[in-house]
Amino acid sequence: MIWIYKTPGIPDELFITSDNVPGPTKEEIRVITISKARLREGDYLVDVGCGVGSITVEAALQVGRTGKVFAIDEDEEAVRITGWNISKFGVQDTVQLINGKAPEVMQALPPVDAVIVGGSRSITDVLRVSYAKLKAGGRLVVNAITLETAYEVVKTMRELNLANLDVVNVSVARGRFTDAGVMMLARNPITIISAVKP
Amino acid sequence: MIWIYKTPGIPDELFITSDNVPGPTKEEIRVITISKARLREGDYLVDVGCGVGSITVEAALQVGRTGKVFAIDEDEEAVRITGWNISKFGVQDTVQLINGKAPEVMQALPPVDAVIVGGSRSITDVLRVSYAKLKAGGRLVVNAITLETAYEVVKTMRELNLANLDVVNVSVARGRFTDAGVMMLARNPITIISAVKP
Amino acid sequence: MIWIYKTPGIPDELFITSDNVPGPTKEEIRVITISKARLREGDYLVDVGCGVGSITVEAALQVGRTGKVFAIDEDEEAVRITGWNISKFGVQDTVQLINGKAPEVMQALPPVDAVIVGGSRSITDVLRVSYAKLKAGGRLVVNAITLETAYEVVKTMRELNLANLDVVNVSVARGRFTDAGVMMLARNPITIISAVKP
Amino acid sequence: MIWIYKTPGIPDELFITSDNVPGPTKEEIRVITISKARLREGDYLVDVGCGVGSITVEAALQVGRTGKVFAIDEDEEAVRITGWNISKFGVQDTVQLINGKAPEVMQALPPVDAVIVGGSRSITDVLRVSYAKLKAGGRLVVNAITLETAYEVVKTMRELNLANLDVVNVSVARGRFTDAGVMMLARNPITIISAVKP
Repeated sequence: MIWIYKTPGIPDELFITSDNVPGPTKEEIRVITISKARLREGDYLVDVGCGVGSITVEAALQVGRTGKVFAIDEDEEAVRITGWNISKFGVQDTVQLINGKAPEVMQALPPVDAVIVGGSRSITDVLRVSYAKLKAGGRLVVNAITLETAYEVVKTMRELNLANLDVVNVSVARGRFTDAGVMMLARNPITIISAVKP
Repeated sequence: MIWIYKTPGIPDELFITSDNVPGPTKEEIRVITISKARLREGDYLVDVGCGVGSITVEAALQVGRTGKVFAIDEDEEAVRITGWNISKFGVQDTVQLINGKAPEVMQALPPVDAVIVGGSRSITDVLRVSYAKLKAGGRLVVNAITLETAYEVVKTMRELNLANLDVVNVSVARGRFTDAGVMMLARNPITIISAVKP
Repeated sequence: MIWIYKTPGIPDELFITSDNVPGPTKEEIRVITISKARLREGDYLVDVGCGVGSITVEAALQVGRTGKVFAIDEDEEAVRITGWNISKFGVQDTVQLINGKAPEVMQALPPVDAVIVGGSRSITDVLRVSYAKLKAGGRLVVNAITLETAYEVVKTMRELNLANLDVVNVSVARGRFTDAGVMMLARNPITIISAVKP
Repeated sequence: MIWIYKTPGIPDELFITSDNVPGPTKEEIRVITISKARLREGDYLVDVGCGVGSITVEAALQVGRTGKVFAIDEDEEAVRITGWNISKFGVQDTVQLINGKAPEVMQALPPVDAVIVGGSRSITDVLRVSYAKLKAGGRLVVNAITLETAYEVVKTMRELNLANLDVVNVSVARGRFTDAGVMMLARNPITIISAVKP
């Protein structure tokens, strides 16, 4: 099947998932995250901690066949599921799957236009190697779910003298239709931090 | 100037604005709204209450030159500012500007793939005429800022037997960098309601 | 055991609970709800839909032995659990337990200073009988978890010409301590609507 | 005038304010903050960064004439306004006003049951001196408005081996009644962090 959307916003339920792999990043957070990367056709992107590959797939649809997405995860199963999703959405030619620790495996990559970090156990190292790989004007986007990660990312981005530092905290509640009416069920808030390499 | 992004996510500050016209819809809300419309190249869309035209511009970039965006606003100045923004972002050929009340001026439009309602004083009438204009499988997306609008939209969408009714409430806080650290400044929550014409 | 707090803010885990009965109302929502009732020593209060009785207990501690809390629930088990909690917190003398439908059983009550509605299947009827029972200057406070209830409550309170209509939507996320840091886990948002009988 | 409420929840507009002094802490945040301190009649409390004194007044009503609230602010005008508010609410006998830097002036205080920190420029020092002054079982509550403060407080409380560490992030939106309906206006989120000295 070849996916026909170009717009970010693939419904969550269309992604292949696994109980052992985080994701998909929920639609609302996914589209904001991709928006912050300001992707253009032909861009090169690294997706660190790709999970089931939802951001990888959406980003691949944005950068197109002339672009490239390097999808990295330490977990073999995450890489396998991402592989299934890139096939399902027809973006195999755009995506290169990499199983390993981001700070190590990123050394071998070419310069890129953007790095999206969905999750990592060594966020400071990931930011430093991302900085090294980013072209001038390239964008770094991190989704933080812990207080500590949000703090470390802001601190490190400032130490790296990144420009246009932007921090947004997004809370989404989704309606469940019950006999009593539409109950709003909250999802956990995410902090999305982005900046530009000058 | 011809705009080069294809991804939703034009920075807010790039839009031409006016003190008398609402908008631009903030980036985070804009990309979620457009995501819910599931736009594809070639789609026809109506943007009801276009304000300064931020959703019109983003949507026009998504549907491309083979698509069409009908941007409607009662307010003449809103239509004028939207005109400036579609020129700035190079999407004049895709957008048709219409000054008038949506329930009336929509009568003359061809069938469409999606309707996005950013604001309206007669939401029930707008939903009914939108339903009439939508193709089967077409999507209706409403941004509600009042309790009453959210309620009316859910009620009317159910009466119209729309499918896949989806309600999300989105709260965004954005960091301001101060001497004391990153203060999170809240923006008003928006309820985004979407559904499909069966 | 006689409870020694007078301040609202009994930790959630101290209440006896049941899988079949909603509650306790989480601490943060409980104290705001009670705050909106502006209780004073000696006040008479109705708690409609008392669940496990967390608001009943806290309110009883506020109004003291000269006050009175009428705790109403349709569900027998809810009334039983509330009974256990009022014993645990030593407020049996202040609380009168009533098993029945609020719009019916409230008919027999004396005039009261405040009504708190935690839940009800016939909210409009409850508001009307509450209005009839409230003294001039008395306060009506409703916790709404559905869009429809929030809408109906605002509409009915306006029709009843209540004064000082106040609507707050409260979202709480609570930190869970993990190896990766403090993850914020969201709770569902609640709309707390309050007003005064002129 | 002698204030007759014992329940936290004084309406915001009843406090005397000043353009140059922060506060009052909004009702919803105030009652949660006080709840987290688990105050009892007779308790001794320090209010660090008292601003206009809204938490000082509410806490004083809770601890009563046998308790004591030490209200500290570096800013002379804050101390003056707090003085006016404690007179307005009739709690002069319970409150001791102190103008100075908290880490210094707290040295002279007796052991206390709770410390509430509304704001401070040297949060780590304040936490350390608070720890020294707290009785065993005493509670420390901090309201953080920046990412960095929230992070530092959690980190320092852990280093001090405080128990029952609790982090809640609270977002409140309040309805404004307009012709178009009830618009929810967001207030900035606050992180309330509390813990117990073992």
